[in-house]
Amino acid sequence: MLATAGTLLSAAVTVLAVLLGLYTMMLVGRMRGKHGVQAPAVTGAPEFERAFRVQMNTLEQFVLFLPLLWLATLYPVVSGYLAPGLGLIWIIGRVLYSLGYMADAAKRSTGFLIAGIAVLALLVLSIVGIVHAWLVTRPV
Amino acid sequence: MLATAGTLLSAAVTVLAVLLGLYTMMLVGRMRGKHGVQAPAVTGAPEFERAFRVQMNTLEQFVLFLPLLWLATLYPVVSGYLAPGLGLIWIIGRVLYSLGYMADAAKRSTGFLIAGIAVLALLVLSIVGIVHAWLVTRPV
Amino acid sequence: MLATAGTLLSAAVTVLAVLLGLYTMMLVGRMRGKHGVQAPAVTGAPEFERAFRVQMNTLEQFVLFLPLLWLATLYPVVSGYLAPGLGLIWIIGRVLYSLGYMADAAKRSTGFLIAGIAVLALLVLSIVGIVHAWLVTRPV
Repeated sequence: MLATAGTLLSAAVTVLAVLLGLYTMMLVGRMRGKHGVQAPAVTGAPEFERAFRVQMNTLEQFVLFLPLLWLATLYPVVSGYLAPGLGLIWIIGRVLYSLGYMADAAKRSTGFLIAGIAVLALLVLSIVGIVHAWLVTRPV
Repeated sequence: MLATAGTLLSAAVTVLAVLLGLYTMMLVGRMRGKHGVQAPAVTGAPEFERAFRVQMNTLEQFVLFLPLLWLATLYPVVSGYLAPGLGLIWIIGRVLYSLGYMADAAKRSTGFLIAGIAVLALLVLSIVGIVHAWLVTRPV
Repeated sequence: MLATAGTLLSAAVTVLAVLLGLYTMMLVGRMRGKHGVQAPAVTGAPEFERAFRVQMNTLEQFVLFLPLLWLATLYPVVSGYLAPGLGLIWIIGRVLYSLGYMADAAKRSTGFLIAGIAVLALLVLSIVGIVHAWLVTRPV
């Protein structure tokens, strides 16, 4: 079950998502150093605060994205490539969001929207997949 | 394995938990607009700050809840309905917490307690399930 | 598949990680009481702020750690004990980090490094495991 093309691709997307998370964490650390913001403070310099918000927002989205990616992967409908494909779009959206936000808080919208649409598509796909699996197996 | 009644119900509970997470995120966005709190600031208006704390606390609980829900689901004991049932109680508790906190910071306790008890029950259920699976299969 | 020694040990490590998360959350609650920091405020006393940063940092690491632990567990290479073993090292590192940070913000480095190395090892192990599974099964 875990060695289908779709599942292995979703595993690869999960690794990319973790790398994105690690990147946003290291960015916060770098900005702490650059602007001399001593832990535990989380305010003090706009560029540090943007990096901190990028990290927190990535974290917030990450924990919703990952369960949906795997529900859509493990209860596939239409094609096993759909879930990892949407996962890849999410990654691209979040990279654009991070780069945009660091350039200017107002430039975070495009990436945010792309990733948001991918999450909503995964949400719909998960619901359809669960309902479909229930109707096919009729477990009760 | 993923098409039992318990597993499909836990998948449905996971979708509900993600919807709760999305709701608390959108609430923060709405409060940003209502009170003119510009990103990356996370302070400035009590109602915004309550929405922000609701989101953060939901996130904190969500990441502990989800692994326990799935451990208890995949290593079932007594009944496969127990884990998703406790998951549903967690959702109800977190909705009450969110509504209570937004009304008044002091009104967040009831929902917090209900969700907390559900998490502790899932924790016990997970431990029992893992120990039970080990004793049954004796993998080493 | 979920009843191998490696999988059951990773399930046990997951329970320990959740307990660590619960501990850091309860620490914040205790510090709120001790220093009279009323919700939704998250500043006001250095010891409270350290506890809050311990919780947030644990949360940030937790959500990256858990997917890697399970990818490395479900796509094993070399030995099924490797992933849960690294998971246990991560737990130890994060406990040292928490105790160190609460004593003095400067004392958080050792535990942070130990846990960081465990996460990077799990990252490498996950990538190797996914590539290995792909090469063995050639799903497309």
